[in-house]
Formats: sequence, C-alpha cells, structure tokens
Amino acid sequence: MLTSDRIELALESAVHRAGDAGSPPLLASALHYAVFPGGHRIRPNLCIAVAAACGAPFPRETYAAAAAVELLHCASLVHDDLPSFDNADTRRGKPSVHAQFGEPIAVLTGDALIVLAFETLAREVAPSRLAPAIAIVAGAVGAPGGIVAGQAWECEAAVPLADYQRAKTGALFVGATMSGAASAGVDPEPWRMLGDKIGEAYQVADDLRDVLCTAEELGKPIGQDAARTRPNAAAQLGIAGAKSRLETLVAAASASIPDCPGRAALCKAIELQTRALFPRQLTQVAA
Amino acid sequence: MLTSDRIELALESAVHRAGDAGSPPLLASALHYAVFPGGHRIRPNLCIAVAAACGAPFPRETYAAAAAVELLHCASLVHDDLPSFDNADTRRGKPSVHAQFGEPIAVLTGDALIVLAFETLAREVAPSRLAPAIAIVAGAVGAPGGIVAGQAWECEAAVPLADYQRAKTGALFVGATMSGAASAGVDPEPWRMLGDKIGEAYQVADDLRDVLCTAEELGKPIGQDAARTRPNAAAQLGIAGAKSRLETLVAAASASIPDCPGRAALCKAIELQTRALFPRQLTQVAA
Repeated sequence: MLTSDRIELALESAVHRAGDAGSPPLLASALHYAVFPGGHRIRPNLCIAVAAACGAPFPRETYAAAAAVELLHCASLVHDDLPSFDNADTRRGKPSVHAQFGEPIAVLTGDALIVLAFETLAREVAPSRLAPAIAIVAGAVGAPGGIVAGQAWECEAAVPLADYQRAKTGALFVGATMSGAASAGVDPEPWRMLGDKIGEAYQVADDLRDVLCTAEELGKPIGQDAARTRPNAAAQLGIAGAKSRLETLVAAASASIPDCPGRAALCKAIELQTRALFPRQLTQVAA
Repeated sequence: MLTSDRIELALESAVHRAGDAGSPPLLASALHYAVFPGGHRIRPNLCIAVAAACGAPFPRETYAAAAAVELLHCASLVHDDLPSFDNADTRRGKPSVHAQFGEPIAVLTGDALIVLAFETLAREVAPSRLAPAIAIVAGAVGAPGGIVAGQAWECEAAVPLADYQRAKTGALFVGATMSGAASAGVDPEPWRMLGDKIGEAYQVADDLRDVLCTAEELGKPIGQDAARTRPNAAAQLGIAGAKSRLETLVAAASASIPDCPGRAALCKAIELQTRALFPRQLTQVAA
C-alpha cells in the first residue's frame, strides 16, 4: 500500500473511533470534515520518511505517530481559524470548521482532535516507547514551546521572533522528525535539527505564499500577515532574499540528517518535498 | 503531607512546567489562573480515595492521574465559559479566563491544559500502566463519550438526555474512579459504576444549585440552565424530587464500590463528600 494511503487509513481509523456510535452527530461530522480531505500531509510524510530512513521496524507505531502529528496539526488549524484568532472563513478551499458548523463545535472539534492524538499513540505504541512518544508530541503542541505557545505569542505586545516562529511552525515539524525516529526505536534527539530547519523553511515558504499567491490558489485568505501585522520573511527580506533564505534552509536541513541506513534517500526526499512547497511564482524570480 | 496539599503540589508542578522559561507570559499566567485557586478538587480527591481503598502502592502515579483529571476539568471550565458557549464572565468568584485574558488566550489555555494532562501521565506513570491510564483519561474527555462530546450535545437539536448527562458530567468522574484504580494496579472496569453514580449525583446537585443558590454563593452566574433551555433535574422533578433522587444516587454509589481493602472507609468518605455537595438550602426542604 502507498504511504499516502496508509496515512489516510490511520487517520480514518482514528477519526472513526471518535465519531463512533454514541457521538453527537455534529461533532462526529466536524471531526471528519476537519481532517478530510487533507492538505499535503507534509508532517506525517516527514515522520514516516524519517522512520523509514531509520529502518522502520515498527510500522504500526510509525503510522500512529504520523497520524497523531497530523491530528494535532488539524486541531491547530481549526482553532487558528476561529473568529477570535484569524477569523478565516475558508480553509483548504472549503468553509472553515466554524463557518460550517458554528463556533462551539469548532472549539470542541479542536479539543477532541488533541485528545484523539494522544489516544492514538496509546493504542499503538509499545509500552517501552510510549512515554517518550507522548513527551515528544506534547512538547511539540503544548506550552512552553509547542504550537499552542506559538499561537499565544501573537497575543503578546513584544514578540521574540525566533521563539515565536520556532513554536508556531517549527515545533510540530520537530515533533514529526523526532516521533518518526522514536517510533523506529532510535534516539530522537539528533533528529530535532532536521525538523527545526524544515519548519523554518516551511514558514518562509508560507510567508512567500501569503504575499505571492491568490486566495484561490491557497484555498484560504491571503495577505493575513500584513493585515494582522505579523512578521513575514518575504516582507522583511524581499522576495529574492526570502528565496535565498529558503535555499539555505533546505541545504541545512539535508546536512543535519544524522547517520542512518537510509540517509541518502532521505536527503533526496527532503529536497524534493521541500521544493514542492516553494510557490510556483518563485521560478519567475531571479535569486 | 495532607492529600489536599499533595494535589495542589502535583498541579503546581505540572503548571509550572508548562509556564516555564520560554513560555509566552500571558499564556503562562492564564494557565496558573485557570487552575489556582481551585474549587473543591472533587475529582482528584475521588481518584486518590479510590486508589487509597485499593492500597495505593504507586502514590506518584496516583497523584499524576489525579492531577491529569483536574487539569482536564479546568480546561473544560475555561472552554465552557467562552462567549460562544456559556458566555460566563465569572468563575470561582473571579473573572473567567477569557474575561481576564481575552478569548484567544482562553482557547489556548484550554488546549495547553489538555496537552499538559497527558504529558503529566507520561512523566509519572510506569510504562506497563501508561497506555490504560491514557485510554481512561482520553475516554473521559474526548469523543464519542467524554466531556467534549457532552458539551457538543448542547449543539444538537435532539438530545438523548442520559447520553448528554453521562458525557458532560459523569465521564470525568468515571475517569477519576477508574484512573484511581488503574494507578493502584487494579482492574479499573469495576470502578466505572461508582464514577457514573457520583457523576449523576453531582449533576443533580449542580442542577439544584443552579436553581437554589445566589450567584455570589456559586461564584458564577445562576439560572443558566433555564436561560439556555438545558435540561435541569430540579426543574423536571421539583426540588423535593431532585433531593430524593440525590439520596438514591448516593446510596447506589456506595453500593457499587467493589471489594477492596479500604471499602468501608471509602463508603464513608464518598457519603460525606457527596453530601457536602448538597446545596445548604436543601436542609430546609422536606424530602
């Protein structure tokens, strides 16, 4: 079975459990709606690619970790889109969860997805690897340094830019690489840098898309950073400067990959996948 | 050390980790504000009382389970008070989290508390007991039957009353009793009924308070059920009927306690603690 199909299957199985008989029907529908159809599933693919490079001796655990990371990503999108945050009416080319189901169900959907992520790990990960798996994922999501903290920096008057970006975007990529390694029974710590660099690259690419793309191409509103006076790399460095920063980060990501059986293939995959994130308009921009 | 002090210490230690150096200051403050000073800490006390009745051979794990249950209870209060839910400006006699810190921080505080609960279990519970501990807590909180699902029933046009009340209130009491038993290395399933009955008793007591007490006594708005056309036992059964239902539930709770070394003491404690929940006005009502 293709990796992408197995990711969808792992997510389907988790979401199905939560929306099982006895679940309030609107919540069950909203949980499915928030997770399917997905975006690029970048984080679970990264988690699985890392585990594969390490030999992936426990594939069920790897797919559980990948699903957990993606469920948490989906939860963060649902809460980020809420009226009190980005107030985004569209996401992935369709109404956002609160636009479709109302605000209370959107808050609860995010909550239920967070719980489901940990439940999924607990179901699949072997006892000897479960505590570290949860610590990695919780660190990537909660306070003080996970994506929830990243979002909370937007409520502060003074924002340390590096802390903000690392928490808001980088943390879940770090969660993906470290979970992938841990799910293969390998020390996850050396895999932190890879997630960190890819996360930073992703943030720069996202900043470029916010400036370069149309809302139709993105499936969500554009110009959000300027509208909310959030820091944006393309605004700070210029388009060419941001593109060059992106190239540097992709190279640093590849260079950071620890020794492992599948290192060469992982380097190539990371390079390809990260480039796929570049807005297509960048090919028309001189570096 | 007193049980109550150890509960506060376990909560302090968890909240301190989340609000550690590097955390956005508002989020760190809101996390502390949402958990301290607490209410009666009924759920963690129940968790610890059950573990004690079972011999409590692993006290660190028991206090971690108790803290996890209370963190999740606090998370649910923060999200329930949001403008899109109960829109409650006060809680425990002070401004609710969103009234004090704004809505975005309130959403994120709830999210971070959910993550922190699972992180706390992963730090303290032995590998062989971690997966069931997480399954119990996740079941008590998430979909299809946890408190998130209970809240989601309020968004449905047709509400199965028993499912709604069991999920909204009962689930976390079941989480408390079953977590307590599991943390003592005992099969948690026979402890489900105790949580269920206490949860139902608590719901009836809460319904009575919503009708009988003043806002000042409760530290939160009263008459919320009538205002939101939510089912209320006191409205359905009358005050005397609800009081009689409460007595029946307390007796059923005691009767459900499985055989264990501390059964007699636990029966007495449950009786006392549950009666402490009765609104004082009830002493003036003929049964």
